[in-house]
Amino acid sequence: MIRFNNDYNVIAHPQVMAALQEHAQESYAGYGEDEWCARAAELIRERTACPQAAVYFLPGATQANYIVVAAALSPVESVICADTGHIFCHEAASIENTGHKLLALPSKNGKITAAQVAEEAARYYDNGTPEYLTEPRLVYLSLSTELGTVYTKAELAAIHEVCARYGMRLFVDGARLGYGLGAAECDITLQDLAALTDVFYIGGTKCGAMFGEALVITDKTLQPRFKAYMKQNGAVLAKGWLMGLQFCALLQDDLYFTITRRADEMAMQLRESFLTRGVPLAVDSPTNQQFVVLTEPQKVKLAEQFVFEDEGDSVRFCTSWSTTEEDLAILMAAVKRL
Amino acid sequence: MIRFNNDYNVIAHPQVMAALQEHAQESYAGYGEDEWCARAAELIRERTACPQAAVYFLPGATQANYIVVAAALSPVESVICADTGHIFCHEAASIENTGHKLLALPSKNGKITAAQVAEEAARYYDNGTPEYLTEPRLVYLSLSTELGTVYTKAELAAIHEVCARYGMRLFVDGARLGYGLGAAECDITLQDLAALTDVFYIGGTKCGAMFGEALVITDKTLQPRFKAYMKQNGAVLAKGWLMGLQFCALLQDDLYFTITRRADEMAMQLRESFLTRGVPLAVDSPTNQQFVVLTEPQKVKLAEQFVFEDEGDSVRFCTSWSTTEEDLAILMAAVKRL
Amino acid sequence: MIRFNNDYNVIAHPQVMAALQEHAQESYAGYGEDEWCARAAELIRERTACPQAAVYFLPGATQANYIVVAAALSPVESVICADTGHIFCHEAASIENTGHKLLALPSKNGKITAAQVAEEAARYYDNGTPEYLTEPRLVYLSLSTELGTVYTKAELAAIHEVCARYGMRLFVDGARLGYGLGAAECDITLQDLAALTDVFYIGGTKCGAMFGEALVITDKTLQPRFKAYMKQNGAVLAKGWLMGLQFCALLQDDLYFTITRRADEMAMQLRESFLTRGVPLAVDSPTNQQFVVLTEPQKVKLAEQFVFEDEGDSVRFCTSWSTTEEDLAILMAAVKRL
Amino acid sequence: MIRFNNDYNVIAHPQVMAALQEHAQESYAGYGEDEWCARAAELIRERTACPQAAVYFLPGATQANYIVVAAALSPVESVICADTGHIFCHEAASIENTGHKLLALPSKNGKITAAQVAEEAARYYDNGTPEYLTEPRLVYLSLSTELGTVYTKAELAAIHEVCARYGMRLFVDGARLGYGLGAAECDITLQDLAALTDVFYIGGTKCGAMFGEALVITDKTLQPRFKAYMKQNGAVLAKGWLMGLQFCALLQDDLYFTITRRADEMAMQLRESFLTRGVPLAVDSPTNQQFVVLTEPQKVKLAEQFVFEDEGDSVRFCTSWSTTEEDLAILMAAVKRL
Repeated sequence: MIRFNNDYNVIAHPQVMAALQEHAQESYAGYGEDEWCARAAELIRERTACPQAAVYFLPGATQANYIVVAAALSPVESVICADTGHIFCHEAASIENTGHKLLALPSKNGKITAAQVAEEAARYYDNGTPEYLTEPRLVYLSLSTELGTVYTKAELAAIHEVCARYGMRLFVDGARLGYGLGAAECDITLQDLAALTDVFYIGGTKCGAMFGEALVITDKTLQPRFKAYMKQNGAVLAKGWLMGLQFCALLQDDLYFTITRRADEMAMQLRESFLTRGVPLAVDSPTNQQFVVLTEPQKVKLAEQFVFEDEGDSVRFCTSWSTTEEDLAILMAAVKRL
Repeated sequence: MIRFNNDYNVIAHPQVMAALQEHAQESYAGYGEDEWCARAAELIRERTACPQAAVYFLPGATQANYIVVAAALSPVESVICADTGHIFCHEAASIENTGHKLLALPSKNGKITAAQVAEEAARYYDNGTPEYLTEPRLVYLSLSTELGTVYTKAELAAIHEVCARYGMRLFVDGARLGYGLGAAECDITLQDLAALTDVFYIGGTKCGAMFGEALVITDKTLQPRFKAYMKQNGAVLAKGWLMGLQFCALLQDDLYFTITRRADEMAMQLRESFLTRGVPLAVDSPTNQQFVVLTEPQKVKLAEQFVFEDEGDSVRFCTSWSTTEEDLAILMAAVKRL
Repeated sequence: MIRFNNDYNVIAHPQVMAALQEHAQESYAGYGEDEWCARAAELIRERTACPQAAVYFLPGATQANYIVVAAALSPVESVICADTGHIFCHEAASIENTGHKLLALPSKNGKITAAQVAEEAARYYDNGTPEYLTEPRLVYLSLSTELGTVYTKAELAAIHEVCARYGMRLFVDGARLGYGLGAAECDITLQDLAALTDVFYIGGTKCGAMFGEALVITDKTLQPRFKAYMKQNGAVLAKGWLMGLQFCALLQDDLYFTITRRADEMAMQLRESFLTRGVPLAVDSPTNQQFVVLTEPQKVKLAEQFVFEDEGDSVRFCTSWSTTEEDLAILMAAVKRL
Repeated sequence: MIRFNNDYNVIAHPQVMAALQEHAQESYAGYGEDEWCARAAELIRERTACPQAAVYFLPGATQANYIVVAAALSPVESVICADTGHIFCHEAASIENTGHKLLALPSKNGKITAAQVAEEAARYYDNGTPEYLTEPRLVYLSLSTELGTVYTKAELAAIHEVCARYGMRLFVDGARLGYGLGAAECDITLQDLAALTDVFYIGGTKCGAMFGEALVITDKTLQPRFKAYMKQNGAVLAKGWLMGLQFCALLQDDLYFTITRRADEMAMQLRESFLTRGVPLAVDSPTNQQFVVLTEPQKVKLAEQFVFEDEGDSVRFCTSWSTTEEDLAILMAAVKRL
């Protein structure tokens, strides 16, 4: 069976593994207070052109999401997000478990618009800030989204502008940031992202690392005591240098974007093969996640040879750094034969 | 500088690293639904002679601690623990953050007694279960404790008996379980532990793994939906097989206890050298953590060559699987010269 | 200015005030452990034909709502409700503040259907109970609803049946229970309600009392330690007998339903006058809350003499026990002249 | 049976009842947005000489306590209090239920000292603000304390100074403020209290009101959105004017302190009678709560005629506004005969 079910089904990119192996006998200070984490943080501050950013490494994306919310909001404040947002649909109410309400907006292909965000904010801010409503103070976006789509720089800037107008922070879930920024049609750079958001992360787990997300807090008012929030929620890894090391490897020679761009390109080939065969796209995605509509017999046929994710209305195929040219060719040939 | 500051300052035992490397190119199902986690869980059920146990792998010990509490207790229930307990002193109020009160009992060398637990339970249960008090429903012990000491089987059985009498569950934090059970003076086996507790974990991070704790839930009433609690708190690792693989390696040929027993023995040599030199022990510990009382000049002297933890009243030296005979000899020689 | 803005703008029905005055010099045990609370609870058990019910008196409805949720659910469980539900829209995320997710269903005139509830439950229960979703364990309805509408006995029974099928509890917010059950078109009795739900309350604040809601817990598994939840959330009133006394007064000679039925009848007259005048109803409500669509000039005109609630798309007029025939006549005359 | 068991066993002072009765037929805006609440708030701002204070009326003291904590602290911040503090001992972990840790200090007669507070604060602030500890940001005192004792102005000023030094807020639980400030040996005025604290409340429930506590927030940084916290926790009473009316009555002609001073004086007579009879005081209290050590036969004897609170080591007798000269004389005579 060949796995196209997700982008985290192999341990780590060989260069990441090599880096871990190379330093396997060395001892380090714990809890992220080591030189690798410092170096990776410095690299990220350079790449984002954001010298004042605080950078922390967390083992997982769910942790990153809910800890940012816990640190950013008071109990009477809430989060605006898409109704397809990972935090709304896939994380077992981790946000509500921190005591916060999600104001989920109807999304289109995984995206929400500045106009929608403005309307939701206005319900509270332009309506007398009634005490029986929560105060939306954080806007959560995913890039790429859960459906593989991306925001353009203009769209992101427009949402940023609404946030600035109402004093809300903008948070970008970057679990698949490499695939998002790596997409041919995405005109956002890491520097843009740092400039237009208050906090975001560079996802490692799904983009070549063994595990780990690099959280970049550009807003200085969100930085104080952030590590205490991480500690309280079990997100300060004892052997923190494991993540510093991995991100150093991923950021060297732009490995991170090299591998995610390649996965996006493979996905574009796959997309083309589905379209050629007449299989409808459920979503028009420019990134490594492709959602297509298969007939039941087509599902059965492909399931003989491939692992993919069945979401009911559609199925998802993912490429990743570990997808081989050979496996992709086999899949595309099978699609052709459908 | 030679590190004796803790037992988690090197990535992982070579056999653990080898196991990860060996399967680095293979792909697996995510979120712990893979064959390595299944195999490790099965091995643990065998070693604990507890076929009905549910076994889960979590990245870190703080997560294990507070997720067990969150899953075990209703909002009006509380935890009895030692006032030196890790959850009371070192985890940034992670338990209170889940909404639960800790009833911390004065400890002696990190331990509490069955009599103390019974007295605290009686305050509630034998006093009309007043509505203005919380109901103690979980007793938390550490083995080895934060001060390196261990419970005897008789002590554990006595506490278990009090728990059974009042309908409280018994939870053992095993972040350093290998060092605890491995201690010459500890007569508790893994089977005993499974029989005398409702939930405990076999610590990996501090006992040879890169990261990961194996949580063993023997009480069937605590098992339902446990993974949803993990998910909600970001403790379901995407590449869960990483932990299954590591525990398979650690459990093979009893590697886990081989390396922790060795570290305990090294600590006994170190202990002897301190005593011989006339350095007082702050705690009489039979495990890998040794707490001694140094004079200021002694601290300064040792700090030239070694990293250790200064706790104010005492300093801590830790041995681990990664401590070499050579480094130990250097330290013991330095102690001699104090 | 004549107030039709809500049903809680005058202290209390004269018979309630008289009861308080009559016993103003007597002393009682605190925290609801007095004879009046016992008597009122007994009366309620009789009227609901539910001898096993636990009855508690809470100062306010928001407290009743979120404390029931806090007591009923574990952190990974959630509540199904209407998207117009009071707990979803008007209580500043009090439910999320307890850590629980609300699964809000699109409502019609404030109501949801058994089919909708079944569909939402099936998403979890008939889909492999995935760990990334919360488990819906409580269904919340309001009677009368926030839009003044009522469920029929058949509708309630159908929802009850879905709840029973999936092991979910049914909770009815009865802040306006008197107006709901008192409506001419509502065929539900107090006994029906007790038989078809697991927990509900008989609202006092909006139905003649100075303050206080009588919570009726028919499900024995929800009863243990309930008062501890109340205590923890500040809902055990020191002078609890105040509420016992009031409910004794309200339940005597069916005063409670006498006054709410009268308010419903007055609302029906008002409704008729709007329809006669050609003012469209925003909702077809058989109870004391009437929502109508006024033009801007009509609003301005009526606002000269009356207080009512402007909800943007519609305005709300409420009758209550304190509405006089005279004031109603003045309003109806004004409507005629619009 | 004559009740000396607490200070809240009769509805309300006759002048409070009269005020409620007088306005029983009038209608008001809800949720505290009425003229009586405005008037009472203005009176309190005058009496405390604190024109910038925000004043809110909450039904109960437990609500006041935990809502202040919820509004004042982030999840990684904690509260310093006495180990006899009401929030630590009597409120079913309401504070922990909001997610916050209590740092309970050993108390003497219910009091803690500035030195103790400074030492606890230094553990965090002067020790590198370690991420595994919570940040103490609020100090909670009771006045009078749970044991009837009072702080002097010098003691309060010293604690205030420590709070200012470390950037912690000072919160005074004034459930029995009247008895505290009313004590002959207490040299603190309402103005002092407002000047030396950031938030406190003037207790109504135990000092003559039917129910209600007047929360005075002098720190402007704690004022924003405070009412949303109240709403979220069910502490915004629908008929809020009930509390405004009561506090207007209590503050008129200094009724509040007239009745609490009288109760304190009665308690001093009772205290004298115990001492004369040779009954030891458990605590030397200058206020309305008297704790004495009775022999078992003495308890039995007094229990024939009086209700009082048995706390095991001691028993408590309370006076209040409702204690009559006659009842006090009967009790004193009985003490004499012991």
